[in-house]
Amino acid sequence: MPLEVIPDKREMAIRAEEFRRDGRRIAFVPTMGFLHAGHVSLLEEGRRRGDVLVLSIFVNPIQFGPNEDLARYPRDLPGDLEKARRAGVDVAFVPEPAQMYTEGFQTSVEVREIARGLCGDKRPGHFVGVATVVTKLFHIIKPHVALFGEKDYQQLAVIRRMVLDLDFDIEVLGMPIVREPDELAMSSRNAYLSGEERQKALVLSRTLNLAEEMVREGERDAARVLSAARALINSVGGVRIDYVDLRDAVTLAEVARIERPTLLAVAAFVGKTRLIDNRVLTPRS
Amino acid sequence: MPLEVIPDKREMAIRAEEFRRDGRRIAFVPTMGFLHAGHVSLLEEGRRRGDVLVLSIFVNPIQFGPNEDLARYPRDLPGDLEKARRAGVDVAFVPEPAQMYTEGFQTSVEVREIARGLCGDKRPGHFVGVATVVTKLFHIIKPHVALFGEKDYQQLAVIRRMVLDLDFDIEVLGMPIVREPDELAMSSRNAYLSGEERQKALVLSRTLNLAEEMVREGERDAARVLSAARALINSVGGVRIDYVDLRDAVTLAEVARIERPTLLAVAAFVGKTRLIDNRVLTPRS
Repeated sequence: MPLEVIPDKREMAIRAEEFRRDGRRIAFVPTMGFLHAGHVSLLEEGRRRGDVLVLSIFVNPIQFGPNEDLARYPRDLPGDLEKARRAGVDVAFVPEPAQMYTEGFQTSVEVREIARGLCGDKRPGHFVGVATVVTKLFHIIKPHVALFGEKDYQQLAVIRRMVLDLDFDIEVLGMPIVREPDELAMSSRNAYLSGEERQKALVLSRTLNLAEEMVREGERDAARVLSAARALINSVGGVRIDYVDLRDAVTLAEVARIERPTLLAVAAFVGKTRLIDNRVLTPRS
Repeated sequence: MPLEVIPDKREMAIRAEEFRRDGRRIAFVPTMGFLHAGHVSLLEEGRRRGDVLVLSIFVNPIQFGPNEDLARYPRDLPGDLEKARRAGVDVAFVPEPAQMYTEGFQTSVEVREIARGLCGDKRPGHFVGVATVVTKLFHIIKPHVALFGEKDYQQLAVIRRMVLDLDFDIEVLGMPIVREPDELAMSSRNAYLSGEERQKALVLSRTLNLAEEMVREGERDAARVLSAARALINSVGGVRIDYVDLRDAVTLAEVARIERPTLLAVAAFVGKTRLIDNRVLTPRS
């Protein structure tokens, strides 16, 4: 079946309803476009999980703060559609903001505790914007299964909690971070980096490796791991920590000891570009 | 088809999915039970609108304030099921609170401007509780059409706005207020009233009649209509105004002049019982 490109949300909702009536299982990958190998890994798994694979490309204005990069967020619709075609996407939903947020729009979906700390504190309103747009996309696309990357770990946790709390009849699947050969986590925002910044950005994955090594060697004290992680990032000029934190991998509650699977989450500005990365540290007992 | 009573939300979701796969149109009437003729009118219209009629009975704790009547809210499940049977309900969904709000529940749906003023100001958190539970019920029951009474006018406006903003693929139908022969609006809370209070409560509908008459006679000044309405209610001992307000019938924005369809909304305590009533006043041009 050739790639169908649908900009209209009513048309998308009708197509989705047709798929469901035909008894076809809908797999859905929501994105902001500028697709990279991380997105493609979601699409490939979605292809395996569903009879119909739907991709959305929508740079969602309400999840950006006033001082963030909404206006300059990278876009490449023709390139994205070509990648979608190669990955076997059946339908690309590509709405305009004016259609997603009509006059008088005033409704929001908020997940509380799990959206606090980490990016939730650094980007006020971000996860309300995410939860709200994902709710809308779920209603329009009516997926049986939705796939999200673990690079946005807190986002995935927020979506999982929202799906549970609001009784969405949707399976949420998290997929591992995809990395460049030099271990930089794939991100559309990597396009912002100069050659020099690109090299400096490698300190994020090196920090995850360092912490993982410490835990493997028996370290269980969160403060010592965080201290070493921060020192390593601070040793690179032009890289500024936004946060470095250890959290319970399931609840995202703060932890003092690394006794269970624990998320190490890192956010840092490399030049003007904010990058995030994370890894779940699992102590051997 | 005999009445099916389902307390389990997963079972309900599976049944709903079966109905949809069979191409059957689901009509849904959400209630807090203690059914009266107003509810029955919703069920009867639902019976006409859908191939399957689903009723939910759930006294939703999160839409009650700490000083409200959650604990003593009237309940009569056997009587409700008998009324449901007579009205041709196919499925009664009757979940327990512990199943609707599981451990760690932390997600809410909020509609902003339209939920302000009127009951929104007097019952903080009420409409967040309503929007959240209706979202959950919509996800579990997957209706094509949902019916609400116009007696809870602001609630209906909130739900309409939420459905629009979150792209629910659901038709929302508002049904006229059903009244007792003496014009008291039907309400489960009427059960709280003593015989004497029951008589005093008639001042609410008389107030609506008075305002309607004023507008029919040419009055367009909101302040004068409100003043007359308040004076009438205040003339009855033991009745205390919670609010009396005129609002645009669509946006619920405040109005100074009655030039378009305008909602007169009244809330008052009769003894300890809080009652509401409303009417849309439509000026003849």
